[in-house]
Amino acid sequence: MTTKNTGAILYDYTRMMADAVGARHGVSAAELGKFEKSAAAAARGVTRKHEAGALPFMDLPKKIKAAKDIAAYADRLKKYENFVVLGIGGSSLGAIALQTALNPAHYNLMPAKARAGRPRLFVEDNVDPDRIANLLEVIDPRKTMFNVISKSGGTAETMGGFMVARDLVARRVGVKNLKNHFVATTDKSQGHLRKIVDAEGWDSFIVPDGVGGRFSVLTPVGLVPAAAVGIDILSLLRGAAAVALRCAGESLGGNPALLAAALQFLACTRKGKSINVMMPYAQRLRDIADWYRQLWAESLGKERDLAGKIVNAGQTPVKALGATDQHSQVQLYNEGPNDKTLTLMRVNSFDQKVPIAPSYKDIGAIAYLGGRTMEELINAECRATEKALTDHNRPNSCFVFPQVNAHTVGQILFLLEMQTAYAGEMWNVNTYDQPGVEAGKIATYALMGRPGFEKQAEEIKRAESKLKPLVI
Amino acid sequence: MTTKNTGAILYDYTRMMADAVGARHGVSAAELGKFEKSAAAAARGVTRKHEAGALPFMDLPKKIKAAKDIAAYADRLKKYENFVVLGIGGSSLGAIALQTALNPAHYNLMPAKARAGRPRLFVEDNVDPDRIANLLEVIDPRKTMFNVISKSGGTAETMGGFMVARDLVARRVGVKNLKNHFVATTDKSQGHLRKIVDAEGWDSFIVPDGVGGRFSVLTPVGLVPAAAVGIDILSLLRGAAAVALRCAGESLGGNPALLAAALQFLACTRKGKSINVMMPYAQRLRDIADWYRQLWAESLGKERDLAGKIVNAGQTPVKALGATDQHSQVQLYNEGPNDKTLTLMRVNSFDQKVPIAPSYKDIGAIAYLGGRTMEELINAECRATEKALTDHNRPNSCFVFPQVNAHTVGQILFLLEMQTAYAGEMWNVNTYDQPGVEAGKIATYALMGRPGFEKQAEEIKRAESKLKPLVI
Repeated sequence: MTTKNTGAILYDYTRMMADAVGARHGVSAAELGKFEKSAAAAARGVTRKHEAGALPFMDLPKKIKAAKDIAAYADRLKKYENFVVLGIGGSSLGAIALQTALNPAHYNLMPAKARAGRPRLFVEDNVDPDRIANLLEVIDPRKTMFNVISKSGGTAETMGGFMVARDLVARRVGVKNLKNHFVATTDKSQGHLRKIVDAEGWDSFIVPDGVGGRFSVLTPVGLVPAAAVGIDILSLLRGAAAVALRCAGESLGGNPALLAAALQFLACTRKGKSINVMMPYAQRLRDIADWYRQLWAESLGKERDLAGKIVNAGQTPVKALGATDQHSQVQLYNEGPNDKTLTLMRVNSFDQKVPIAPSYKDIGAIAYLGGRTMEELINAECRATEKALTDHNRPNSCFVFPQVNAHTVGQILFLLEMQTAYAGEMWNVNTYDQPGVEAGKIATYALMGRPGFEKQAEEIKRAESKLKPLVI
Repeated sequence: MTTKNTGAILYDYTRMMADAVGARHGVSAAELGKFEKSAAAAARGVTRKHEAGALPFMDLPKKIKAAKDIAAYADRLKKYENFVVLGIGGSSLGAIALQTALNPAHYNLMPAKARAGRPRLFVEDNVDPDRIANLLEVIDPRKTMFNVISKSGGTAETMGGFMVARDLVARRVGVKNLKNHFVATTDKSQGHLRKIVDAEGWDSFIVPDGVGGRFSVLTPVGLVPAAAVGIDILSLLRGAAAVALRCAGESLGGNPALLAAALQFLACTRKGKSINVMMPYAQRLRDIADWYRQLWAESLGKERDLAGKIVNAGQTPVKALGATDQHSQVQLYNEGPNDKTLTLMRVNSFDQKVPIAPSYKDIGAIAYLGGRTMEELINAECRATEKALTDHNRPNSCFVFPQVNAHTVGQILFLLEMQTAYAGEMWNVNTYDQPGVEAGKIATYALMGRPGFEKQAEEIKRAESKLKPLVI
């Protein structure tokens, strides 16, 4: 929960380059130079859209007044034992990433005092009945605030979970008191959830128009849950604002987000690196990789480019975790198909160092650890992996954090959003839509018996009747 | 914690085939037919190795007596409040998968009575100092049993964590009482940890010879933590044993594990599906996908084949989670590069159904959910995704579970191990080694100042001094 700004994140991209991993797998300085014009065009494309009002996510770092209101609201949540987010995808991944990054690993197990009186946080981002049932066992609904997050109020997963929770709360505290247990983050005037909020008198926050779910972490979607658990959301915005200034230019050397986008684009389209592994060496950064997974996949994974041509664009994001995944994935990363870029992250100064007490001095294979710290060990492992990947000609880069705090987390989130915006221009796709999930939504409506979808239901059942599964 | 065996898992592979997704992306019946001979050879290869004593993991389902001893030991752990696993990779992923699958989602938050008096479980599978420090804040070392898991006792991450925990416990209870707080799972006679166990009089369990970490979930490595938290490990073994019988033949139609291996192999090597996404539609199965990630990546991701030829083999496993990732990854899966196979999982009967109370009857967009159950919703979403993937010509298959219980979890774990063993024969690689992680280990020793590695340390620092990171 430290909020000090102790300096800048470094972006070490040296090992993405041909000089480090060879010309077959790395981008050469000449290739990058030739791409300068395209990169500048991408930067201008983003600026043009922004100036036309089409990219309001870029203005979010300035919304300090709104954040102060959210923080004031959050202070009134201390009387609750639990804060439960009901949201999915863009309505949950930001809150999870912030909580993991900026609160202790076992936050929910700590006594209220160690949480500064803040509620425990649960993010119910699935429709799994076993998990929902267990959540309702471990929380007391009378001491719980549910934050229902949906722009439209039509998201089946979120609204299904809400209907379950509402029924439980209503039975425990009465329908009249629902407003003390539900707060919405939704459209300012339209949609099904707005209608419910108005009818039942809940508090509510607004999902601004034109900010898609995967770019919404710095709206009330991410900020309300973060503030509820005591995260310094003002510092988060200030970190993002610093990056907004830093990542605005048109030259690769002067704009780290543009450079990162260019390197991933060139690695993917010219060197066959169809996978981008994000592998932070810090438990607290792991869910930033998960949040990035949606950002990168949904923004770039498109059937058609802007000219309508079928391109099946995109690079598959993979989340990994150092040092843990050295014992799971690094064998493949070093020796398997050379079809990946790796984006590592490392933290120079952890909040805790955790000294390793000297012991077993007669056992050489472990004695060397004595007197060192766990901080040194995890950072040595990161540097070791960088070396091994480079020796195997696997292009890799690293974001080096001075510390993990609200300011640096604000920086990295906004940087990755800008990287994605620029990459969308380079791939020439619509970065902000997601047409490929409609078919699945309609099929779900059909199978759940929503009126008007009977024909689709018949069709699905007919197709399923032809399946011939093997019995195990 | 239900242990009923209510029937078989189904493997629906129909949508991997050309009939469903077209000949460019799916395997045709003719291609599969032609592969029968190679598949039979792969099956014989595994059988031959097994008969020669080289694959002891295949005998684990029969070790009922050992499992009974473990269960009896676990019953004596009820006096502890916490059971902490210190292990990484193959020494932790199995325990995590079992705990997630077979205990409630919020197990550690439940009161002791609801846990049948069993300890809480923490798996400390990283060297992150912030997380370790926070763990030591939320547990009372006097009420904690640490399970140190390492075959050699030389694993830096595990032994570093152990040295930290040992120091803390020794200061709180005295060196003489260490044996009441540490239990080892290690080699029967050799290695550094065995030496410590013998010197300090700990209880210990044995990692059998010839069973690598990623195949060790049914040894004490996975079974001791599982039994500690009340999982029915006998039922787990019986499920595995049933699959051992079912997945032993040489014909694709008679051996589901062989068929699954063949389909992934053909999809990868002939149809360009370099990624295998495992996407269970059940929160409880999500860490089985993580466990599989190590199994598939480390076993097949090899620079050289058995003839010594450079092949850079392997297929990149990706874990996803339904329905959650429909709002994150499915856009890419449907519309992005057609370079993936998807292995879904679905559960016919969850332990809980969670009815959705009818409400908001005037809001059509959500009213249809009323009167249905969350179980119906998550399964509808899975079937909807299968349909959407198939409509987009994305090869996909599904394991359909009757229930999630120890018996079915034992089945799927052993089936995936057999699938991997067969796949290793098809790819013609050494399925059981991991030479590609050695370089990283040595670099870590060097950076941590282990005597004898000074030259490597110099080399790494020299290379790092040439890096030119960009300041953000």
